[in-house]
Amino acid sequence: MSDQNLTPDLLVIGGGPGGYVASIRAAQLGLSVVCVEFDKTLGGVCVNVGCIPSKALLGSSEHYEFAKKHAAEHGIRFEGVSVDLAQMMKRKDDVVASNTKGVEFLFKKNKVTWAKGVGTLLADNVVEVKGMDGTVTSYRPKHVILATGSVPMQLPYLPFDEERVLSNIGALRIPEIPKHLIVIGGGVIGLELGSVWRRLGAKVTVLEYAPTILLGNDADIIKEAHKIFSKQGLEIHVATKVIDGRRDRDSVIVETEKDGAAQRFTADYVLVSIGRKPALTGVDATALGLALGKRGEILVDHQMRTNLPNVFAIGDAVGGKLLAHKAEEEGVIAAEVIAGKPAHMHYGNMPGIVYTWPEIATAGLTESEARATGKAIKVGKFPFSANGRARTMGSTDGFVKFVTDAATDEILGCHMIGPNVGDLLSEVVLAMEYRGTADDIGETVHSHPTLSETVKEAALGALGRSLHI
Amino acid sequence: MSDQNLTPDLLVIGGGPGGYVASIRAAQLGLSVVCVEFDKTLGGVCVNVGCIPSKALLGSSEHYEFAKKHAAEHGIRFEGVSVDLAQMMKRKDDVVASNTKGVEFLFKKNKVTWAKGVGTLLADNVVEVKGMDGTVTSYRPKHVILATGSVPMQLPYLPFDEERVLSNIGALRIPEIPKHLIVIGGGVIGLELGSVWRRLGAKVTVLEYAPTILLGNDADIIKEAHKIFSKQGLEIHVATKVIDGRRDRDSVIVETEKDGAAQRFTADYVLVSIGRKPALTGVDATALGLALGKRGEILVDHQMRTNLPNVFAIGDAVGGKLLAHKAEEEGVIAAEVIAGKPAHMHYGNMPGIVYTWPEIATAGLTESEARATGKAIKVGKFPFSANGRARTMGSTDGFVKFVTDAATDEILGCHMIGPNVGDLLSEVVLAMEYRGTADDIGETVHSHPTLSETVKEAALGALGRSLHI
Repeated sequence: MSDQNLTPDLLVIGGGPGGYVASIRAAQLGLSVVCVEFDKTLGGVCVNVGCIPSKALLGSSEHYEFAKKHAAEHGIRFEGVSVDLAQMMKRKDDVVASNTKGVEFLFKKNKVTWAKGVGTLLADNVVEVKGMDGTVTSYRPKHVILATGSVPMQLPYLPFDEERVLSNIGALRIPEIPKHLIVIGGGVIGLELGSVWRRLGAKVTVLEYAPTILLGNDADIIKEAHKIFSKQGLEIHVATKVIDGRRDRDSVIVETEKDGAAQRFTADYVLVSIGRKPALTGVDATALGLALGKRGEILVDHQMRTNLPNVFAIGDAVGGKLLAHKAEEEGVIAAEVIAGKPAHMHYGNMPGIVYTWPEIATAGLTESEARATGKAIKVGKFPFSANGRARTMGSTDGFVKFVTDAATDEILGCHMIGPNVGDLLSEVVLAMEYRGTADDIGETVHSHPTLSETVKEAALGALGRSLHI
Repeated sequence: MSDQNLTPDLLVIGGGPGGYVASIRAAQLGLSVVCVEFDKTLGGVCVNVGCIPSKALLGSSEHYEFAKKHAAEHGIRFEGVSVDLAQMMKRKDDVVASNTKGVEFLFKKNKVTWAKGVGTLLADNVVEVKGMDGTVTSYRPKHVILATGSVPMQLPYLPFDEERVLSNIGALRIPEIPKHLIVIGGGVIGLELGSVWRRLGAKVTVLEYAPTILLGNDADIIKEAHKIFSKQGLEIHVATKVIDGRRDRDSVIVETEKDGAAQRFTADYVLVSIGRKPALTGVDATALGLALGKRGEILVDHQMRTNLPNVFAIGDAVGGKLLAHKAEEEGVIAAEVIAGKPAHMHYGNMPGIVYTWPEIATAGLTESEARATGKAIKVGKFPFSANGRARTMGSTDGFVKFVTDAATDEILGCHMIGPNVGDLLSEVVLAMEYRGTADDIGETVHSHPTLSETVKEAALGALGRSLHI
């Protein structure tokens, strides 16, 4: 096509949250941008088979659980509640479509060209894009951003078939409510999607190799989460090693070992959520001389530069926490650096959310990480059971916990489990960006009656002067 | 009783959110404290007949409305749904009881004495408390805090009977779902309680004297709120003067005038929510020489001192915004000043929330107030319809709006209407306390997919560089 810009200022490989945001930001800064994406829609894993559809199903299934378990207490009488799974899935697909179309609209508005096809990075930063019809277009961009994302890891004896052995993709579109869903891996994805199907009526068994679910989180959070999720009906087995498994027609068999004892689990579906690894589709690191880390992640500096001239990398492909908002931020930084603006990436206060109910939200150091620094620290904790708004909602599980520097009161970390804590955390992350103190939050008026009062009270707790406990 | 402390360091008249928080804070600081409250329970209007019960009913009625209007879209099917009003009211009462008992527990824990009865302030700061059994106890405290709260204003021709002519008290316990509820006054209380009964099935007509509902709010917020509430089914009449009214057995008749045209409204219930005025129960200002303002509010300095020696006043009784968290903060300030700590009250960033759905949350200057200062300003706005999480929730009405100083980027005001904005505002209030900028919020990572991304994007909007619109 004659109107194609084959020498853009920037070519981005990958249209997920890192890649599309980098493209938009670069376009805002006046660069000509081509973004390569082989999927039928923009948005990557996050929008298509990750954050967005999982939150849609989490929301719908929460409403269903409310109708079944809590509505009567509120004076709402239901007769004959049931799930119309096809409709729930259709709504989820509609929500995904509105988001992918939204990204497409943003590309048009910002004059970012979507090159549909599989991009391959060649020597001298030539990028060949092979379209669905087989035509190959060759680009010579001034700069390249690799935003190739990640793929789920699988077990050799249980490869994904997305019918019975599911990754996140299949677990978002099971055509029936499973009788029994085995979840291998008690991390974020396993707990979120396990919760969805449990709420809809499945028996859900979580098998976790580590001594705890949500490994790496603050110990108090893990303990509370384990307690709450178990009470909700998730059957959680920690310190349980999956040693073998196989599909047998419409069943899946998983063999485990715990404390030397073997156990066999049989179910109709299994979700394998044992982690994700960098995807380097179209990037032959060895041939290009692209430096990778131990886990196959692309190595970058604090301005997202790889070791190849004018080649940047962002998002899951560079490892670290596999979070959409981390990828977005890296995308903004890379775009600004390429546009000649001063910018660098810092990861210190990167928030992480688990969208179960209650939610989990954390940023900064855990209590044990903070203690390990050798600093004297303080801890402030306030339960949602003492928050008026949480009581009116009937959602009183959980707490907010601050970890502060005892000498300076600086907030070192904050860990929350409770209603809507994903939104409550943003205040604390901002405070940490300012290197603020618990006193700053504790002395700031928080509206009554809001859940955010719990944040204030926990901050006051680090100062030994919570009011409402 | 021999163990009574008749000469406490501090006596607080009123056990509402201002008074009970002042009592607890003073006790934390080592003062001996007596708090006088004549109601059967602690917590005042807020806990007993205000914030807490209204939020309980708002929550329950939201769930009911979801069931009726949105559950099918989510794939939740049922054969029938109905309201069990007695159960809904019982749950509300249980929530209130858990909160009032909570305050009682806090008093015991902090060794605050609850003097049950009506307190009267006499000369030389003697306070007489007349108990329910008629016995009078005389206290000679070193300091007094007046936290006597406020009472609803009534119309001379429509005095409250709490059967058909209701204040907030009666409107929280209507024994049936009204066929038609007239709400006189389109402020916070009218819109919140009007929303509750509309959701439960009542026809609700709001009559507002001013040219708009929610007078004093940002014009964009008012416009959006009017549109959304009307779409939800509230029948809103603005610029409508109520000129007469009467109860006629089980009916209430309200006569209005708009643009010179008379109109008559007939309903089975009317809520009169035209404002509140300071209550000075037990305080004869004239006799004591206590200085009052034009609206009957107790005049105080920035450390909550009245003109009488060692007498402080806080909360609704001192006027200003009648908000529980304002009263709490004033209570903390008064207690700290009395305990000899440096403290003063400032009102610049006081947040205000309306707990309708969507919620409304505001702090600082409206756009027109900011323009009136003569400063060059910028405005950043981002709609929830472009937020991924709001889409997954199906709650895309509303927006976040920042008003900033064009020269410095300092945040001057923030106005939100949308899902959970009461909690989202706390981040912005903290930023304003730091005299922070839109750039501070815009450059801080906000988790994906959360509603709080809307705050970030609106802040970026003030800088002309929102990413997702």
